[in-house]
Amino acid sequence: MPDAELRIGMVGHGFIARAHTAAWLTVGRTFAPPLRPRLTALAGRRRDAAREAAERLGWESASDDWESLVRRDDVDVIDICAPGDLHPDIAIAALEAGKHVLCEKPLANTLDAARSMETAARHAVERGVRSMVGFNYRFLPAIAFAKAFIADGRIGALRHVRCAYLQDWLIEPTTPMSWKLDPVSAGDGVLADLGAHLIDLAQYLSGMSIAEVSGRMHVFTTARPTADGRPTHVIAPEAASFLAALGDDVVGTFEVSRVAAGHRNSLVLEIAGSEGSVGFDVERPNELLVYDGRLAREEQGERRVLVTEPVHPWIEAWWPPGHVLGWEHAFTHEVLALIEAIADGRDPEPGFDEGLRVQGVIDAVARSSRTGSWVTVATA
Amino acid sequence: MPDAELRIGMVGHGFIARAHTAAWLTVGRTFAPPLRPRLTALAGRRRDAAREAAERLGWESASDDWESLVRRDDVDVIDICAPGDLHPDIAIAALEAGKHVLCEKPLANTLDAARSMETAARHAVERGVRSMVGFNYRFLPAIAFAKAFIADGRIGALRHVRCAYLQDWLIEPTTPMSWKLDPVSAGDGVLADLGAHLIDLAQYLSGMSIAEVSGRMHVFTTARPTADGRPTHVIAPEAASFLAALGDDVVGTFEVSRVAAGHRNSLVLEIAGSEGSVGFDVERPNELLVYDGRLAREEQGERRVLVTEPVHPWIEAWWPPGHVLGWEHAFTHEVLALIEAIADGRDPEPGFDEGLRVQGVIDAVARSSRTGSWVTVATA
Amino acid sequence: MPDAELRIGMVGHGFIARAHTAAWLTVGRTFAPPLRPRLTALAGRRRDAAREAAERLGWESASDDWESLVRRDDVDVIDICAPGDLHPDIAIAALEAGKHVLCEKPLANTLDAARSMETAARHAVERGVRSMVGFNYRFLPAIAFAKAFIADGRIGALRHVRCAYLQDWLIEPTTPMSWKLDPVSAGDGVLADLGAHLIDLAQYLSGMSIAEVSGRMHVFTTARPTADGRPTHVIAPEAASFLAALGDDVVGTFEVSRVAAGHRNSLVLEIAGSEGSVGFDVERPNELLVYDGRLAREEQGERRVLVTEPVHPWIEAWWPPGHVLGWEHAFTHEVLALIEAIADGRDPEPGFDEGLRVQGVIDAVARSSRTGSWVTVATA
Amino acid sequence: MPDAELRIGMVGHGFIARAHTAAWLTVGRTFAPPLRPRLTALAGRRRDAAREAAERLGWESASDDWESLVRRDDVDVIDICAPGDLHPDIAIAALEAGKHVLCEKPLANTLDAARSMETAARHAVERGVRSMVGFNYRFLPAIAFAKAFIADGRIGALRHVRCAYLQDWLIEPTTPMSWKLDPVSAGDGVLADLGAHLIDLAQYLSGMSIAEVSGRMHVFTTARPTADGRPTHVIAPEAASFLAALGDDVVGTFEVSRVAAGHRNSLVLEIAGSEGSVGFDVERPNELLVYDGRLAREEQGERRVLVTEPVHPWIEAWWPPGHVLGWEHAFTHEVLALIEAIADGRDPEPGFDEGLRVQGVIDAVARSSRTGSWVTVATA
Repeated sequence: MPDAELRIGMVGHGFIARAHTAAWLTVGRTFAPPLRPRLTALAGRRRDAAREAAERLGWESASDDWESLVRRDDVDVIDICAPGDLHPDIAIAALEAGKHVLCEKPLANTLDAARSMETAARHAVERGVRSMVGFNYRFLPAIAFAKAFIADGRIGALRHVRCAYLQDWLIEPTTPMSWKLDPVSAGDGVLADLGAHLIDLAQYLSGMSIAEVSGRMHVFTTARPTADGRPTHVIAPEAASFLAALGDDVVGTFEVSRVAAGHRNSLVLEIAGSEGSVGFDVERPNELLVYDGRLAREEQGERRVLVTEPVHPWIEAWWPPGHVLGWEHAFTHEVLALIEAIADGRDPEPGFDEGLRVQGVIDAVARSSRTGSWVTVATA
Repeated sequence: MPDAELRIGMVGHGFIARAHTAAWLTVGRTFAPPLRPRLTALAGRRRDAAREAAERLGWESASDDWESLVRRDDVDVIDICAPGDLHPDIAIAALEAGKHVLCEKPLANTLDAARSMETAARHAVERGVRSMVGFNYRFLPAIAFAKAFIADGRIGALRHVRCAYLQDWLIEPTTPMSWKLDPVSAGDGVLADLGAHLIDLAQYLSGMSIAEVSGRMHVFTTARPTADGRPTHVIAPEAASFLAALGDDVVGTFEVSRVAAGHRNSLVLEIAGSEGSVGFDVERPNELLVYDGRLAREEQGERRVLVTEPVHPWIEAWWPPGHVLGWEHAFTHEVLALIEAIADGRDPEPGFDEGLRVQGVIDAVARSSRTGSWVTVATA
Repeated sequence: MPDAELRIGMVGHGFIARAHTAAWLTVGRTFAPPLRPRLTALAGRRRDAAREAAERLGWESASDDWESLVRRDDVDVIDICAPGDLHPDIAIAALEAGKHVLCEKPLANTLDAARSMETAARHAVERGVRSMVGFNYRFLPAIAFAKAFIADGRIGALRHVRCAYLQDWLIEPTTPMSWKLDPVSAGDGVLADLGAHLIDLAQYLSGMSIAEVSGRMHVFTTARPTADGRPTHVIAPEAASFLAALGDDVVGTFEVSRVAAGHRNSLVLEIAGSEGSVGFDVERPNELLVYDGRLAREEQGERRVLVTEPVHPWIEAWWPPGHVLGWEHAFTHEVLALIEAIADGRDPEPGFDEGLRVQGVIDAVARSSRTGSWVTVATA
Repeated sequence: MPDAELRIGMVGHGFIARAHTAAWLTVGRTFAPPLRPRLTALAGRRRDAAREAAERLGWESASDDWESLVRRDDVDVIDICAPGDLHPDIAIAALEAGKHVLCEKPLANTLDAARSMETAARHAVERGVRSMVGFNYRFLPAIAFAKAFIADGRIGALRHVRCAYLQDWLIEPTTPMSWKLDPVSAGDGVLADLGAHLIDLAQYLSGMSIAEVSGRMHVFTTARPTADGRPTHVIAPEAASFLAALGDDVVGTFEVSRVAAGHRNSLVLEIAGSEGSVGFDVERPNELLVYDGRLAREEQGERRVLVTEPVHPWIEAWWPPGHVLGWEHAFTHEVLALIEAIADGRDPEPGFDEGLRVQGVIDAVARSSRTGSWVTVATA
């Protein structure tokens, strides 16, 4: 382990915060990062809960005051695992205080907020302060391998993008209201939460930008009880679908839902070109489906590649082939990338610019859903 | 075998005509239809080819003259397996001549033509003359079982429709021009050819109508050689995507392509509701994927039901469980339904009204693709 | 269609006879066989049932007398679809009467009977009379493609054979006794019935012979009702497992069952060598799973090859890619092979020698099950 | 976190030791174990390597002397991750020194050694000292759920066990010799290493003991280079197959291999009874395939249950549904079970008696492979 530490301050202690904590703890004993992460401080809304979480998860201190946290001298990185409405204030304050920032996705709840954050990040770079948005699925070995496969020209010219992120945790009308359904805390609901992953993956893997969209959003259950049983009105969408033009020729289909019967956490995508395709499902995160149209016709077929070989991204540090990794380790690789970028004095990827690019698409889909026509995605 | 015959006259002898022929020959020795089909006459464009095909396939006579065929006294049914631009003339002439008609899908190349055909069919019914459009996939046991499952309320209230019909036979730019790419013979290309199946299945299985669409169509390869090597310009789309509103709440995603790498003939659909879902892939036509949300939570999961039990539609007449049927027998069941309807003096399903309903959606998608906005589907 | 006919006489009219009938009817309009099969005569145990079946299936005449049938001047081929105990008498009588013979598998119920049949077939060849045993699965395109793939050295040196043929139609103890459970009519029960397929496929695909076996057989339900409700004692096995040595190095695992919960007709096999493997499941008969160990390590994986391309065996005569064939057409290709061999004056494959080779293994497993030790397979 | 510590001393620092380390570190922040594990000391063969590993993995001290380690006053548990030939000495010394022991599987390299260990463990219990053998796959949620499903009678009376553990890391003859191929360090090679998992799972899930076996073992590549390139002769088997009788009626098939093309780490099993079945593949460790024969016939089918619900074993402490766990967390649950047993003063499961039961089967297969006949498994 290196002597130099990287002292982390985390905001939030929900399940994503738990996953980030695991990543900060795991990265050092699995990889050889140039800086040693230290779980310095955790902030939550309520002091008691934050203290309990900090003790259980292994954080050295806890508070209910993120504003102090982002100014602590003994903290180098602010890891934002709070709801989206808090992202801009926390991130901008942290960047101004000279802290590197890792911010959960989506970057913000509105396009304006995302723009402010990206501007702050751009200025912070001049002071050597780095920022990263947590599109964690980029850091699954199968996705990183798919990216390389496509970038190497192995699927030829892009023809089709088809993707869906389907969950069913809201399928019962009696499931209570959640901050994830409140437009104040969660913006465009499922479109922002799950859609952000799809949009980023489609743009990242294809190497193209979504330029135009036509979409619709849905609330199937307009009334849900609060956690303590009072009725509330639900506005944030539970499902959304959109068509998205990438470049001149390609129209992709996108769908997100939290009421999709039978789908627990099914992020499925297929990207196909003139020479081949790749397919993926996050419920089987160690597998990439590869189709290679250059093989002899009689031998062509969809191939299940188990992305667990030492030659695959990040795997050499893990287990022998076929000993699969869980969902959580996308975060381990994500924080590794951040640590390395900080140590090297480089900008990590994906930066806030990527977060903003995704936000532009979310915003365009939401507008298209209101106007009923195709909407051009705003460029930064 | 019954004594009473049903004398068939067929127009066309391409691969679909071969499949229909197999169906007419197979239905009698597998089921006990009330009328015995007889392969009386076949008509094609060129006399030689028609004669050769008739001899090989077992038709008693052959000609290059469909206009005579539809007026022959010794023919009861006209089975139209010709390109779409010929459907209206043949069908209307046959109906006027008092022949029952089985017409391949899509019903026509234009909405106007489909309307004329539906009108002719409606008038013919008054004279006891029946007509049917060949949405053959309705007659796969797995689809018929899915229909019953959904109609029984087993998936609850409809939430999601997601379907795609993907092929790759045009993926090479050197693959020659085909009548299937010529707007004169094939109308809206892949949207009409493959889209018709998806639209019909979505409406049939859900029991709902598509009311509004937003879509785009694509030509990736604008120049292809003709069969004899001269360059042609391609206009008919090779791919299309659209969103489709069913009822108030549901937006489905639809995609068709003939340039989808790795997909030979992949009609996949998933229809999900508040209580469950069904999924299907025509490359595995004997399987239905069923999700039942009413099972105990810890036992829920997607179930692969092999639709080869005697209790499943049509299966009792076939082989023991697990001895799977091929694609072709959708047609066997389709002609069985037609024979029974004729014998019973009922209208077969799907009739030309269903063909027209699908045509309205195709037309709306094509218009939406031109205007760039949501388009309401014309009602008959 | 050729002028010259091949006049068929069939013994039996159960479900396999129905499948053979379909094959004889289909082969001519799908392929261009050198002789035109004619459904001349069918014989069954009871005259009424035979007549009814003949009429429904399209046979020109019917009787309850196979002994006359095999001597009819107007019959060229005897197609034996009767229970195994009748195979030797019918086949030998037919061969002596100068009729070509297609005999369902297993060739016989005992090794001695199989030897007599093989001897009769060998002598008949001298008179130009051909015989074939109906290992129909060899005639699935996926299996024929697998055979070529292995024969081309694509999986390297054989290492592993793993196969199972699992059904569940006897899982209920109340399911009545069947001739398939009677040692008189069905010999070693499931071992002979389903095991014959596995043994033949393992030997055919590997190009090796099973030399030695160690196995066990099982009767789980020793008492079943007859069809009319009287109790019977069941002796013929419902399940069997064995290890089988092929050559010096390879030990395969084999399993057959009619009480395997959830398996309707699951013939699964995997054959692996030093360079690759092939896998197959008869419930998805159009798919071959191919693993090619010569691809770059990071791209290796099991590939689902849809064996429906024009370049695949028999497919050019059928439908476009991805339009799958059913179980039944293995028989269509089987009778095609027989017709061509007869027309060419060659022995068809697999001949009675192959049937005998399989019988030797069945016999050895049955002996091993009794003695509890490894048993060497008798060579012819 | 509790105040009371459980101080761990580990022997070994290969990949399994890394997995155990991760488990000891993870268990506290995921669950609420009654004792807090502390990574006190690690011992390896070479001091330098041990020190480097200890630092990287987070152990407080390191040595090359397990004999001192097992006697340290400040160590409560000895976690044995060393090759099998060292298990007896280390485990017995540790037990005698009053340390609880977690010993990797297989328990030992010989039946005699396993017996000594089980005897030592039995005596140690009288002094409140606990021991556990690391059959980690029992601690996957899908396996624990399968156990409960079977124990609840949901598959009825056992009929079939079919399992295989297939890897391919030795498929190249040039892959160097390993301690896993040396009979001194690894006993019966793949039979012991991978076979131990299958045997334990078959006995654990079925609730029955293997009473008799017939098997064969194989060395395909008899000469391999050592790591530094000198030729060696290989004796320990690379593959083994056996039939195994469980109770009166059931014969299971078992296969293990390290030269199975295309299988990286494929532990597949199916256990079927008179009413249903369960299936599993460790490459998809979050999924259990369930067949329920009590559903209506037309709806029966193999169901893919994603074992990631809060109601499933251990899951409540992890992530939301569909966010899958990796292979490693079987160890997290394994050490949780050990910690809880120690805290409660109970024997953990599986104990050394279970390790011995498995060793008896391994020994019987090895003997059967030499004698060529069925061999009865020695009872303790």
